[in-house]
Amino acid sequence: MCDDRLARQMAFIVEIDRLKSVYRRTLLIDESRNDNSAEHSWHLAVMAMILSEYAEEPVDAWRVVRMVLVHDLVEVYAGDTFVYDKAASAEKEAREREAADRIFGMLPLDQGREFRTLWEEFESRRTPEARFAAALDRVQPVLNNYYTKGHAWKKHGIRYDMVIERNKHIADGSPTLWKYVKALIDDAADKGYLTRDGK
Amino acid sequence: MCDDRLARQMAFIVEIDRLKSVYRRTLLIDESRNDNSAEHSWHLAVMAMILSEYAEEPVDAWRVVRMVLVHDLVEVYAGDTFVYDKAASAEKEAREREAADRIFGMLPLDQGREFRTLWEEFESRRTPEARFAAALDRVQPVLNNYYTKGHAWKKHGIRYDMVIERNKHIADGSPTLWKYVKALIDDAADKGYLTRDGK
Repeated sequence: MCDDRLARQMAFIVEIDRLKSVYRRTLLIDESRNDNSAEHSWHLAVMAMILSEYAEEPVDAWRVVRMVLVHDLVEVYAGDTFVYDKAASAEKEAREREAADRIFGMLPLDQGREFRTLWEEFESRRTPEARFAAALDRVQPVLNNYYTKGHAWKKHGIRYDMVIERNKHIADGSPTLWKYVKALIDDAADKGYLTRDGK
Repeated sequence: MCDDRLARQMAFIVEIDRLKSVYRRTLLIDESRNDNSAEHSWHLAVMAMILSEYAEEPVDAWRVVRMVLVHDLVEVYAGDTFVYDKAASAEKEAREREAADRIFGMLPLDQGREFRTLWEEFESRRTPEARFAAALDRVQPVLNNYYTKGHAWKKHGIRYDMVIERNKHIADGSPTLWKYVKALIDDAADKGYLTRDGK
């Protein structure tokens, strides 16, 4: 029984190695290749350790970290959905729920429930921790886009207003971080990394 | 003053993106490329969430997770040292201490100290958390080597006895995980993924 538990846990740990091959639209800052969802999750976790003091409401950093560590696991089966792709985003929910059943179902029941609860909390943005985690999830790609001179924005025809629209919920998790990111986005537009509407 | 704090934190967050381009000897399980230290750190953090129940002594999982998230940050400047490379390992300590001064020195003083303390604790293996984190740091590459049929072991001429020698400290963090890993290593030798000495 105990051995079966460890076998399930190890099978899950082996399976999630696949998240390292789920590539996102954003480039690494050194421009060598696209970011993947596993290293993106690590980046968010370190950001949570550093930036939690800026959360809109006091947050349990341990819960934020657990949430960001597991928030993209469904992509092992569902793939990454580009945040600006409206068609893919529409059916994203059903696709990811099915993936969640499959990936979290590999774990022992108690841990599968714990991981699923964290993922659902992240998606719902109903707690201060989830709103802060969701803010970090938007801050990181803006940084990478800014420092690669808007590579992914240009490549996919993303304009200033779309970036504002898709990222403004950072303010729900952290007004301080939104102020910082908004200034970066404005500067990106000034520098021509991003096109303003009507130009 | 407050703005300077956030500026330092953000500069650090941008700088550590470089850890995603520090490649390790181990292949991803899908064999598409080598593992990097950022996604490796993510993998360990999720493993800590799942496997802490097997620690030799009760551990604070939050401390283990923070330790594995930061344990490889010095590699941003010091690079990854192959665990079986004895020459490189000899001067690794000095190289990594210098890198630690540089990378953790980018953060505000309080957070730089916190990160450095976590890194030193990990390196020293003096606490149950550090011994467990160090165990995870060995378990993950064994899994990846096993599931890629010993790719890195074969490529670098690593033999059975060397693998046992370099990984047996897993038992100090978790006898259960060492038992599991030892069985995998034995099976790898039986399957010819790994050469036994004298053969």
